[in-house]
Amino acid sequence: MSNGRPLLTLLTDFGLQDAYVGVMKGVIAGINPDVCVVDLTHQIPPQDIAAARFNLLNSVPYFPQGTVHVVVVDPGVGGTRRAIALQTPRHVFIGPDNGVFSGIAAQEPVLAAIELTNPAYWRTPKPSTTFHGRDIFAAVGAHLTLGVAIDALGRAIAPDSLVQLPLLACQADGAMLHGGIQYIDHFGNLITNIPADRVLPSTWQITLGDFTLPGQTTYADVPSGELVALIGSHGWVEVAVNSGHAGDRLHAKIGDAVQVQFL
Amino acid sequence: MSNGRPLLTLLTDFGLQDAYVGVMKGVIAGINPDVCVVDLTHQIPPQDIAAARFNLLNSVPYFPQGTVHVVVVDPGVGGTRRAIALQTPRHVFIGPDNGVFSGIAAQEPVLAAIELTNPAYWRTPKPSTTFHGRDIFAAVGAHLTLGVAIDALGRAIAPDSLVQLPLLACQADGAMLHGGIQYIDHFGNLITNIPADRVLPSTWQITLGDFTLPGQTTYADVPSGELVALIGSHGWVEVAVNSGHAGDRLHAKIGDAVQVQFL
Amino acid sequence: MSNGRPLLTLLTDFGLQDAYVGVMKGVIAGINPDVCVVDLTHQIPPQDIAAARFNLLNSVPYFPQGTVHVVVVDPGVGGTRRAIALQTPRHVFIGPDNGVFSGIAAQEPVLAAIELTNPAYWRTPKPSTTFHGRDIFAAVGAHLTLGVAIDALGRAIAPDSLVQLPLLACQADGAMLHGGIQYIDHFGNLITNIPADRVLPSTWQITLGDFTLPGQTTYADVPSGELVALIGSHGWVEVAVNSGHAGDRLHAKIGDAVQVQFL
Repeated sequence: MSNGRPLLTLLTDFGLQDAYVGVMKGVIAGINPDVCVVDLTHQIPPQDIAAARFNLLNSVPYFPQGTVHVVVVDPGVGGTRRAIALQTPRHVFIGPDNGVFSGIAAQEPVLAAIELTNPAYWRTPKPSTTFHGRDIFAAVGAHLTLGVAIDALGRAIAPDSLVQLPLLACQADGAMLHGGIQYIDHFGNLITNIPADRVLPSTWQITLGDFTLPGQTTYADVPSGELVALIGSHGWVEVAVNSGHAGDRLHAKIGDAVQVQFL
Repeated sequence: MSNGRPLLTLLTDFGLQDAYVGVMKGVIAGINPDVCVVDLTHQIPPQDIAAARFNLLNSVPYFPQGTVHVVVVDPGVGGTRRAIALQTPRHVFIGPDNGVFSGIAAQEPVLAAIELTNPAYWRTPKPSTTFHGRDIFAAVGAHLTLGVAIDALGRAIAPDSLVQLPLLACQADGAMLHGGIQYIDHFGNLITNIPADRVLPSTWQITLGDFTLPGQTTYADVPSGELVALIGSHGWVEVAVNSGHAGDRLHAKIGDAVQVQFL
Repeated sequence: MSNGRPLLTLLTDFGLQDAYVGVMKGVIAGINPDVCVVDLTHQIPPQDIAAARFNLLNSVPYFPQGTVHVVVVDPGVGGTRRAIALQTPRHVFIGPDNGVFSGIAAQEPVLAAIELTNPAYWRTPKPSTTFHGRDIFAAVGAHLTLGVAIDALGRAIAPDSLVQLPLLACQADGAMLHGGIQYIDHFGNLITNIPADRVLPSTWQITLGDFTLPGQTTYADVPSGELVALIGSHGWVEVAVNSGHAGDRLHAKIGDAVQVQFL
């Protein structure tokens, strides 16, 4: 825990049209009025677990020790999927066991995994069958910021029993890497699944459909409106248009194949 | 008031494109830098008082004692509509007297109603004629979080003089309830005006257009992509599509009729 | 600095789909967990420096002494444009030197301008070439809220060397003012570049395309659905539709000419 106010992040597919996110913040403030809540995003496409995982994995490294991350992209709410908490050396993660946390263990060791079976830390012992974000996850997260021990939240489960959502594969084949687009952001930047450390410090180029682009450093390395390939801020190989939208330009979509060649 | 930071919510139709909401927060922080501001939503359709009321009424129960709720959906700004504050046992409400608060009194008794005629608690004695959210409502709300008594804000008015916006009717007819869709959320869930306590613990089904659906418990009670009827998290009978958008599927709109039958 | 929590605003074109804004808040909280972060807007159209400037200039007057404003609309990130901090009597501004701060000096004298060359106040001495918002601007802003002196951030530069983005001209011609639309907000209100003090307290009318409208006071001065001209809350002459969208109604766009006549 940092020395100042405790920090709790929210990542959901609730959108901002309705008051669902506001209501979760009301529940949190009712339990711990001093917590600082940070919105990662609430505009995950409905039920898109892969997009939620991408945003979570690429945000967590920038948050301080002790942050509690609450994720509610939860198509199985009220069914048989487990509600869980994961403890790593730096953070705690709260949400449904549906694959949204797969990949965390590759970043930080999971020290404990708990199923949230103890209603003492829920908002109510009779939670809604459709909004565990409000009645379980937000309440449990707020209690954690008060110093409740993760063990108190329920029964320990095996970390290797957690639901895994496979990442799109990135495979080496001679002097080539075969990967794909894993995410398209608001600017239309095409973020592949090829990490920087697989290409740097080599000289490289990337092929996507009919285009082959040399690896460069920043958007401004090409004129405005031109395609550019570089290492994006997330640490993945990325294809962009300087001051434009590569997704629209190339009619690209998640899963489209890319190849990296070393020169 | 809770023991920690005071809490103030904002509910507007300002959208998030412009800095209007940010400016209100600047005014609030200038008066009380320690207040915690929670956004309920700013994406109420412009001038849609009914949507604002729905989101307010269904959020308030989840906020702690002492929360100040500021609502700015205000098509009559600068005209003759009154600016008001309402005190209930748990909360204070600030905003225009245009019906947006009708229904509050059915949830919590209105202990006092005040017209905001005292410019000492406004941002400026000469408020803009088009942005009372900034110049009156935000400033008054911030002063309340500092402990200003509601009586100081202006002159008392009769609670039964407040503008009322009638709710869509829900009427019993033998073994049937006749109601309608009162709200469609971001997920496309169709939220009717039939409250849970009118149907539970009976066995029930609902008819909407050509579809009749049995009352179930949660989205996952039907396969992905199928229609489902249940009690939603707001406490109203709801029609949804598991992992889909019922509004688009059924071409439904607010006001569409529904019938509940008991079996 | 106010007596309560320090205040930092964010203004970006990042949108809310991705976690970019959340990540900036994580960096800020890691440096100063007690800062209060206010979002001005994150929905500036990508790379639209003029829209960012409009929202900044029209928000700053409503924030208290000591607020730090961080602006990240930064098409030239990673290239040769400078990263800067500006000190005025009331505020500090952090962001790229691309014209987004032009106009500040007309509101408040610029006491100091600094190029952000000192990596001690960055998140990392090796910042991403595509996300200075996270690695430089957010970190520098957070350090300022801890009391770091602006001089420590880098080397002083001449205020008159800052990049200027010319404002759309507003010119007098006899009894007429010639101006244009500088911004269209979420409500579709057409905000011209003619300031209130150029028309008040005279009696005036405005011509926009085929329409000539008398200057009035508030939206409710005309029936619902009718065009109205008035002084908007930003302090500019504005054309609106009462409870409607003037931009759509008139097919108006930024830069369209308007004329004000005095009667």
